[in-house]
Amino acid sequence: MGKETVKLGLIGLGTIGSGFANLLKNNSSYISEKSGLNLELTRVADKDQAKVEALGFSDSVIASEAKEITENPEIDIVVELIGGLEPARTFVTEALKNGKHVVTANKDLIATHGKELLGLAREKALNIYYEASVGGGIPLIRPLKHSLAVDRICRLVGIVNGTTNYIFTRMAQDKLGLSDALAEAQKLGFAEPDPTNDIEGIDAAYKLMIMSSLAFGSSLEQDRLHVEGIGRVTYEDIDYAREIGYAIKLLVIGERQPEGLALRVHPTLVSFDHPLASVQNEMNAVYIEGDAVGEVMLYGRGAGAMPTATSVLADVTEAARSVVFRPNAGVIESDFTHLPLIPIEELKTRFYLRFLADDRPGVFAALANAFGDENVSLDMVIQKRRVGSTAEIVLVTHEVKEAAFQKALGKVMAIEAIKPESSMIRLLS
Amino acid sequence: MGKETVKLGLIGLGTIGSGFANLLKNNSSYISEKSGLNLELTRVADKDQAKVEALGFSDSVIASEAKEITENPEIDIVVELIGGLEPARTFVTEALKNGKHVVTANKDLIATHGKELLGLAREKALNIYYEASVGGGIPLIRPLKHSLAVDRICRLVGIVNGTTNYIFTRMAQDKLGLSDALAEAQKLGFAEPDPTNDIEGIDAAYKLMIMSSLAFGSSLEQDRLHVEGIGRVTYEDIDYAREIGYAIKLLVIGERQPEGLALRVHPTLVSFDHPLASVQNEMNAVYIEGDAVGEVMLYGRGAGAMPTATSVLADVTEAARSVVFRPNAGVIESDFTHLPLIPIEELKTRFYLRFLADDRPGVFAALANAFGDENVSLDMVIQKRRVGSTAEIVLVTHEVKEAAFQKALGKVMAIEAIKPESSMIRLLS
Repeated sequence: MGKETVKLGLIGLGTIGSGFANLLKNNSSYISEKSGLNLELTRVADKDQAKVEALGFSDSVIASEAKEITENPEIDIVVELIGGLEPARTFVTEALKNGKHVVTANKDLIATHGKELLGLAREKALNIYYEASVGGGIPLIRPLKHSLAVDRICRLVGIVNGTTNYIFTRMAQDKLGLSDALAEAQKLGFAEPDPTNDIEGIDAAYKLMIMSSLAFGSSLEQDRLHVEGIGRVTYEDIDYAREIGYAIKLLVIGERQPEGLALRVHPTLVSFDHPLASVQNEMNAVYIEGDAVGEVMLYGRGAGAMPTATSVLADVTEAARSVVFRPNAGVIESDFTHLPLIPIEELKTRFYLRFLADDRPGVFAALANAFGDENVSLDMVIQKRRVGSTAEIVLVTHEVKEAAFQKALGKVMAIEAIKPESSMIRLLS
Repeated sequence: MGKETVKLGLIGLGTIGSGFANLLKNNSSYISEKSGLNLELTRVADKDQAKVEALGFSDSVIASEAKEITENPEIDIVVELIGGLEPARTFVTEALKNGKHVVTANKDLIATHGKELLGLAREKALNIYYEASVGGGIPLIRPLKHSLAVDRICRLVGIVNGTTNYIFTRMAQDKLGLSDALAEAQKLGFAEPDPTNDIEGIDAAYKLMIMSSLAFGSSLEQDRLHVEGIGRVTYEDIDYAREIGYAIKLLVIGERQPEGLALRVHPTLVSFDHPLASVQNEMNAVYIEGDAVGEVMLYGRGAGAMPTATSVLADVTEAARSVVFRPNAGVIESDFTHLPLIPIEELKTRFYLRFLADDRPGVFAALANAFGDENVSLDMVIQKRRVGSTAEIVLVTHEVKEAAFQKALGKVMAIEAIKPESSMIRLLS
């Protein structure tokens, strides 16, 4: 069999784009040998011409604008690596309209406009590949689409943001406060100069939406997703959690429940017995529970140019096979039925709570009443160090509905002897 | 698009076969909805008719012998779940000759006759799917064939035998000897009545061969693979290892080196910092290092009827797509070039050694000379508990060629004051 040549157009030569171009250059003969496919990078475009030139592409390859790629009749696959919503959405739409498969690492785009874009792709008998949008180099999207798609996935729990995981690791290991750990992360390139999307859980929420759409066959709408960042977690919380056998991680949690889907992103106490507790530094991992398969965990580098470029190249290779052999139809793809999202108030969780109280008679009784009134039962109450006449109290509840806990918490915080600062962190059950 | 019906024949209704039949019954409408494929179990066969009847198949489905499946012109895919070399090899060969795709969970068969059978499949433009042959429900074969196949994998380290991992976990947690832990494992169904293949590392070696063929594109020949079982590891070793920061695991290790491939199976000290160290009980995990992707770990239930059946069903679904849409060609499949295996004598490793010695002057000097003569340098020497005039000595070497270490070890064991019983365990570097 002769080699089939498949022509690629690449839009975006930032870190991942350059990584992809280099990986393709290094590995294309190896891939060609194994698969019989010649992947040819026909055209590249970036608004920053200096980047294009720095990579040493010949003039015939350099496009002066994205249109020369999305409208180029020679090109079979468009690789979109510019990120963000616009103009990425326009480029991807144009590419699909012109009959090209699309490979992207753009989580914002897929989480926000995935339904529309995948619908358009389906209409055109094309596909959009987005392995690189979640978990960098970790095979996640493909296992969810293939290996695990034959099972009923009941739960998916993940550490999918490397920045916050690195921050928590440094806080725990070096007894740092959040801002010092963030500064370290920025110095080492594990956090962006503007880390808002990471710290506030938005990056993780996008990734949860993408994985949930595949794991639970639900649509990609962001309504009523509970997203909480790591801003209020202190070194003391990490230290107390450790004392009682838990690590603190920013988790994304998706669960299929009888009433619908429960999706949330928040800092979480994870028992040291759970494999996610030992995922350190900038590493990512997703723990999946299926009715038949039991537990599966996929772990690896969730970011970085080369790991992410590997996922892009794996997608390009799959898309190229599709161009040559048209095997697309029949892939188990999300069918985008809309499952109702259960509001967090309805979910049952265990809670960790830390606060300061004047150390005087009657405080514990008032506390017990506040919780008792809402049927919140306590699993653990520890009175910690005392400074002057102030005691620090750490408690963990049994499983209780969020709404009831919040009501009890309101009453607790209204007790005169209790100081207004407090930490509340949910547990993974 | 109408639903396409794909017809399956199932040979073997043991634990995995029955699990697969049940999973298919429960999930086929769900899969059909998502993929547009109707998977129909057309014929089943097992030499034990009672098993067939117990599953409640109608008479028209029950085949009286495997031939009625492998020669049945209606059947598209043959699922072989009887295990062992014969008659599985004959059945698979017949199925391929009659134009059927094959799905199997049979690691012995693929490790031993994979080259021949995959060659025959290729000749017939068919495929053999064997995700379930390694790691039960963990997606391993498919990621090695697709996601990670675009990268250069340099190393693969795995815990792929649940029985021995369970045994080591119980030994460590409950201070048990190997035979007590084995008895526990047998009682709980984590070990076979005859555990030889597990305990001696043979099961793990088969799985290493299968994964290596994909990870390194090498052929599946078993020559000169170093395989060492867990029989000589004691509770004391596990305890000492923990003291110096290591867990003991039965590992399969495959490495691409300039001179060829290094493949081995042996009990190994794994630093507690390594993600494999926290893989407990009967769980399995494979840690893969690629040039571009960095580290990836795939973790889950490595055995059990339902996890394994999930992998079989995922393969069946992929094979069914192939039947309907013929997307086979171009999958990155092992190309079976023969890479030389490097003999273990040539490999550089760190060694843990434990032995007893008469506590008298000159022993340490003799020891130091024995190691020094072979240029084996020591990283750590600990004189442990003393009983009467006998001291227990634990040492760890720096990295050294196996041959040099073995020579030094011979000299050490010849020292008159040193008792003949000793433990030698390699470290994961």
